[in-house]
Amino acid sequence: MTLNHTHDPAARSWLTSANEPGTDFPIQNLPFGVFRRRGTGEPFRGGVAIGDQVIDLAAVSASGVLDGLAADAARAAAQPALNDLLAMGPAAWRALRHALFAALRHDADATVVSALHACLVPQSAVEHSVPTRIGDYTDFYTSIHHARNVGRVIRPDDPLTPNFQWIPIAYHGRASSVVISGTPFHRPHGQAMAPGASAPVYGPCRRLDYELEMGFYVGPGNALGQPIPIGEAEQHIFGMCLLNDWSARDHQFWEMAPLGPFLGKNFCTSVSPWIVTMEALAPYRVPFAHPADEPQPLPYLDSAANSAQGGVDVQLEVLLESAQHRAKGVAPDRLSATSFRHQYWTIAQMLTQHANNGCNLQPGDLLGTGTISGPTYEEAGAIVELSLGGTRQIPLAATGETRTFLEDGDTVVLRGWCEKPGAARIGFGECRGEVLPAIAG
Amino acid sequence: MTLNHTHDPAARSWLTSANEPGTDFPIQNLPFGVFRRRGTGEPFRGGVAIGDQVIDLAAVSASGVLDGLAADAARAAAQPALNDLLAMGPAAWRALRHALFAALRHDADATVVSALHACLVPQSAVEHSVPTRIGDYTDFYTSIHHARNVGRVIRPDDPLTPNFQWIPIAYHGRASSVVISGTPFHRPHGQAMAPGASAPVYGPCRRLDYELEMGFYVGPGNALGQPIPIGEAEQHIFGMCLLNDWSARDHQFWEMAPLGPFLGKNFCTSVSPWIVTMEALAPYRVPFAHPADEPQPLPYLDSAANSAQGGVDVQLEVLLESAQHRAKGVAPDRLSATSFRHQYWTIAQMLTQHANNGCNLQPGDLLGTGTISGPTYEEAGAIVELSLGGTRQIPLAATGETRTFLEDGDTVVLRGWCEKPGAARIGFGECRGEVLPAIAG
Repeated sequence: MTLNHTHDPAARSWLTSANEPGTDFPIQNLPFGVFRRRGTGEPFRGGVAIGDQVIDLAAVSASGVLDGLAADAARAAAQPALNDLLAMGPAAWRALRHALFAALRHDADATVVSALHACLVPQSAVEHSVPTRIGDYTDFYTSIHHARNVGRVIRPDDPLTPNFQWIPIAYHGRASSVVISGTPFHRPHGQAMAPGASAPVYGPCRRLDYELEMGFYVGPGNALGQPIPIGEAEQHIFGMCLLNDWSARDHQFWEMAPLGPFLGKNFCTSVSPWIVTMEALAPYRVPFAHPADEPQPLPYLDSAANSAQGGVDVQLEVLLESAQHRAKGVAPDRLSATSFRHQYWTIAQMLTQHANNGCNLQPGDLLGTGTISGPTYEEAGAIVELSLGGTRQIPLAATGETRTFLEDGDTVVLRGWCEKPGAARIGFGECRGEVLPAIAG
Repeated sequence: MTLNHTHDPAARSWLTSANEPGTDFPIQNLPFGVFRRRGTGEPFRGGVAIGDQVIDLAAVSASGVLDGLAADAARAAAQPALNDLLAMGPAAWRALRHALFAALRHDADATVVSALHACLVPQSAVEHSVPTRIGDYTDFYTSIHHARNVGRVIRPDDPLTPNFQWIPIAYHGRASSVVISGTPFHRPHGQAMAPGASAPVYGPCRRLDYELEMGFYVGPGNALGQPIPIGEAEQHIFGMCLLNDWSARDHQFWEMAPLGPFLGKNFCTSVSPWIVTMEALAPYRVPFAHPADEPQPLPYLDSAANSAQGGVDVQLEVLLESAQHRAKGVAPDRLSATSFRHQYWTIAQMLTQHANNGCNLQPGDLLGTGTISGPTYEEAGAIVELSLGGTRQIPLAATGETRTFLEDGDTVVLRGWCEKPGAARIGFGECRGEVLPAIAG
């Protein structure tokens, strides 16, 4: 993807909050979400983040300030879910992004500025919903470091299954329990088998975990039976978000042979409100390659463009805010930090793999990348890795507490951003969720 | 579930085709589906099978012949998917069933007969769609005979995983590729690793299989976080259908460690047009028990009602019709036959297990039972079992062909029915699908 004027790091907006250093949402970003004014019961509709504001796309559409394909795209985005916008494809996404960029730039026409100004809602005053009606949610497993770390807990002799280096492995997740950032959830009940026990017990999860992931949303789909070649894959990807695939490790490890994770995962999956478009991420694309001494991708998963810039360098971090952090008024502890660039497969490879058997992807479908763990211990994306399967206490410096797994009242916050010299910072905002106590019974 | 006058085997309809011996759709059945006149492009709407006809529920609703809750239910069922009807719950389902039963009975009032007659469409003139908008599709794995048979192919030393006798095991399937009976599909491409090979190959499936299953549809759902106790489970189940979980065994067996089946399954899943209600199945409920020397269900999966009549005695058979059968004009060969009563877990246990961690089920969700294989070789519900992993040729007597796995042009037909002395026959119709050649490339 080539760069254009919307990536110019010198571009400035007439909205001053968009120009502040460190903002996640400068004029070069323009991520999409769905929102309404908090507590109003208004219909949800599409919005775009800029500085500390949301541009109301229903209001933009009604204002008549856009025309052509951009106006069509804004109209599609004015609904309670972005599926129709995502179905329109890259030309429409680009038209809307470029039109909003022009309307927000410091030198926009005064009448346009006035019209846009009337469409702004403060981010502090909104609530979000999951940005699409998710038809199907699929979760991949594409960090070789995570696979080895978790594999060691389950299969010490053979941590990495032989297919990992050949297939972007995935499983189907649960679409109904994907929730928007900020939604708390109850510690789940389930069956677990203790080591050496003769029978499982049913009760609240004792090994509750988070998983640091990114998600990406499908744009135009494919008909049942028709694969998507690797060279076309990114035309079917609208953008990326943060995703937390909460996991009940005790339930998961007991249930998952032979059919994979199910109840250990499907009680809750959190996504961030904002979808950062692939166009906004263009400055942060990086080369992709498997190590030379490891299996190389089969031809259907290989392309020159994927090798040249299949990766995305997104900085990621995981924060834990316990009840004590809140009581003491201290900042959350950082558990780990890494980058999405370390994944073993690219999002184009994941999408092509998903459709290679003719499985039909649909606009608005959500694909998760799997836990993102980097090459070092400090870069692990799940607490089961940091605590070495629950055997090592993780200190929370700000409160003096320790953790092996999550406790009631813990809030986990994922953050993501892209940053480098010569390019504007592109932020993802955050994805958060709090663990509530198990429901009695 | 107690029996009532709608189960009376002596009941007769004024529609003579409903009274013919051997019909799947007597007045005691009244299964629900979604249909339109074939080739007309009309909107799909709900319908009920009776004899060789379909009762058009949109026409019934418009006719004004029903009132009260039955009229409300018919109005909900007049849409292109039955989700709203399913959300209404057992009282509404029963009201509509009983009202249609009364209107179809031989002694119905002449004006009612006349009104109903105007709502009939011949089954030979209709096409169907998947009866609900499926939010999520889950497939269980609840035949211990299938688990042992397939386990022997994959893990000869340890065919049954230790959790099988404690958990109704399941995995998430793909909702987008659930198709209605009669929809053909292309042989899928995928990766497979040959025994002893050092690298996988990508190409058309060489071990294509069917799976004889039943499905059941969720009625009223549960809120995220709120389990469904076993005693309430059947209030959340609308009815049952036939389901074929087509499987690419070569792809599946290579991909499925550690996260379970994915591309080996999600290219196509076929369902029958008709959903037989739980009320219609009441005469065929049978006791459920695990063998006394095997683990007994944990308390949350156990109830007196489930033990007394948790099972359902549905007769099932699998037929194969090859291109040669069609060319020679001979009847399909029967590959196997069994009963759903042999499953290791009941549908109530499956539903309760699915929600035990708070996973939210929604009206119209589809749950599959997993392959239904009975205790003997002849009762195996998949060709990988009948062919002992592809090592035994299965004769097709009618054409002189043999099979180890499915070939292009093969049509697999599942049939199901309940039958016993002193009760009306309750049929499921059939679920069929044809294997088309792989798409080039």
